Amino acid sequence: MGLTEGSTGVAIVVNLEEERGRKAPSLDALSALVNDDLAKVNATIVERMHSPVELIPQLAGHIIAAGGKRLRPMLTLASAKLCGHSGQRHIKLSACVEFIHTATLLHDDVVDDSSLRRGLASANAVWGNKPSVLVGDFLFSRAFELMVEDGNLQVLAILSRASSVIAEGEVLQLITANDTATNEDSYLEVIRAKTAALFAAACRIGAVVADRPKVEEEALDSYGLNLGIAFQLIDDVLDYSAKQEKLGKAIGDDFREGKITLPVILAFRRGDDEERGFWRRTLEELEQAEDGADLRHAIHLMEKHQSLQDTVKRARHYGAIARDALGIFPDSPAKTALTDVIGFCIDRAF
Amino acid sequence: MGLTEGSTGVAIVVNLEEERGRKAPSLDALSALVNDDLAKVNATIVERMHSPVELIPQLAGHIIAAGGKRLRPMLTLASAKLCGHSGQRHIKLSACVEFIHTATLLHDDVVDDSSLRRGLASANAVWGNKPSVLVGDFLFSRAFELMVEDGNLQVLAILSRASSVIAEGEVLQLITANDTATNEDSYLEVIRAKTAALFAAACRIGAVVADRPKVEEEALDSYGLNLGIAFQLIDDVLDYSAKQEKLGKAIGDDFREGKITLPVILAFRRGDDEERGFWRRTLEELEQAEDGADLRHAIHLMEKHQSLQDTVKRARHYGAIARDALGIFPDSPAKTALTDVIGFCIDRAF
Repeated sequence: MGLTEGSTGVAIVVNLEEERGRKAPSLDALSALVNDDLAKVNATIVERMHSPVELIPQLAGHIIAAGGKRLRPMLTLASAKLCGHSGQRHIKLSACVEFIHTATLLHDDVVDDSSLRRGLASANAVWGNKPSVLVGDFLFSRAFELMVEDGNLQVLAILSRASSVIAEGEVLQLITANDTATNEDSYLEVIRAKTAALFAAACRIGAVVADRPKVEEEALDSYGLNLGIAFQLIDDVLDYSAKQEKLGKAIGDDFREGKITLPVILAFRRGDDEERGFWRRTLEELEQAEDGADLRHAIHLMEKHQSLQDTVKRARHYGAIARDALGIFPDSPAKTALTDVIGFCIDRAF
Repeated sequence: MGLTEGSTGVAIVVNLEEERGRKAPSLDALSALVNDDLAKVNATIVERMHSPVELIPQLAGHIIAAGGKRLRPMLTLASAKLCGHSGQRHIKLSACVEFIHTATLLHDDVVDDSSLRRGLASANAVWGNKPSVLVGDFLFSRAFELMVEDGNLQVLAILSRASSVIAEGEVLQLITANDTATNEDSYLEVIRAKTAALFAAACRIGAVVADRPKVEEEALDSYGLNLGIAFQLIDDVLDYSAKQEKLGKAIGDDFREGKITLPVILAFRRGDDEERGFWRRTLEELEQAEDGADLRHAIHLMEKHQSLQDTVKRARHYGAIARDALGIFPDSPAKTALTDVIGFCIDRAF
């Protein structure tokens, strides 16, 4: 949307202006669909992060209340609805998915030395790394307790597998960090594991609680996996995007940490020796001008090589796979809502 | 053993000399009992810590291979034998217990900034904090995968509950760290959670896999819990003990970190204002002489107030409860082995 083949970096800004009149794809249909359930999920989250050790609900509440979109638990709720689940099991399991996600966020922020999370001070910035590691462990254990209460071994297998895949992906990302030789496939392997695996699991368990045939489970897994990849690719674009800055969010976090994301990989591979020297200095050696000149130059190089636009194109590719994965389900409000999520995840880039 | 009512600090050394001729309680009976099973557990551990991300088995292998006594998995094996389990399920579950333990060690070392673990460089000292956090998460997830493969919901409930209790205990310990006002009960609450809960769970699941009645499950839980408390109390004593130094292990780690353990709590409460000032300066403010004079003075105060001896006495109390908990089981090599463990855990203080 708003970007055409051959558009230049400058065109991004122009097109963004043009987009203003258009109604952007949103999470509205999803929110309307799962609103009542989500209130129950939030109540379960508050109830289950309780501990007599007060720092635990304080710290967990900080990151959980700070909001975020609750996208992953909403996906579980909508997937369960899509599959005609009429019970209440999806409530607890959605809370469980959010706990796993929150635990990984807490540990991520420690590993990345992040000081901000969703525009607020990160938990590690407020309380230090130590409680963030331990409260992450607590939430992770709590997630497993919730699953065990549900008692479905298939759900347990899906979510415990997703958890170890996420941890594997995080380690892989740590190893490939600051390595400009990383190629697109290695990068995809990382985001499949660290981001998309939980999206896939969150959706798949919707079919499992509804006791649907394997083909539907796998369709929702594929939907979630590809949606997750698209979501992460757009996240990576937003870190260099003017849109993000307009929303008052910081840009350049990935750049400052030397993270090798797809926009960097494309710009690096399409650049000349001098440009590669620039990327090596700034992202491998982490020698960066303090006045932001290097970040501006990085964005300039990305615009020159259309690497942001092409990352969005790649995201659209995965979004299309996600859309087709839903093809086996008959039309329903849940299907519409899940389809809209794809557009939302991609179009937030503009 | 070797310490009598009213013995002084100096007497510790004297008595230690006297002890030399006596055969110390050991893990020999336990080792003989579970040796074959333990080889299978070790093979399972090696197999299940595998990942295509090589850093994971490297780092996990470093801490797992560094050895330790494998006390917790051995307790599961022996408990299963005590309950007449004849299958193979206890193998996987013992590996699972060791994975949970190892994951907490990795995170502990990050939280405590420890540079040594069992006399070797700690994983965080070799690879840094970040991979230690993430590989800990991986091992923790892997533990859950192993449990899910076993498929017993009762085992899953016991171990997931133990995991969140451990995390709660670690946070509680972090909060009460460096607080000389901590009393014996608060301290016991911490070690029940951070150490004893896993001992209790490790033993209890032995009865569950053997499908024994609840009274036996609870007996093994009580045995494990009290053994775990005794084990931790003696660990705390060893950190200030000449025996530890003779074995070539460092002493004073807890002191340098300002950890408030029972020997400190007793010395603080039994000391005068000047002494309390010393404890506050060294453990709350962490102002410590670099030449080790403060550590020596701390040990002197502990000897003066018999706080090491009395911590051992407290450990004996919990050891006695553990011993009696086994009373409902008929005599067997497994019962002898488990009883010997109590003596071993306590008498390693001498």
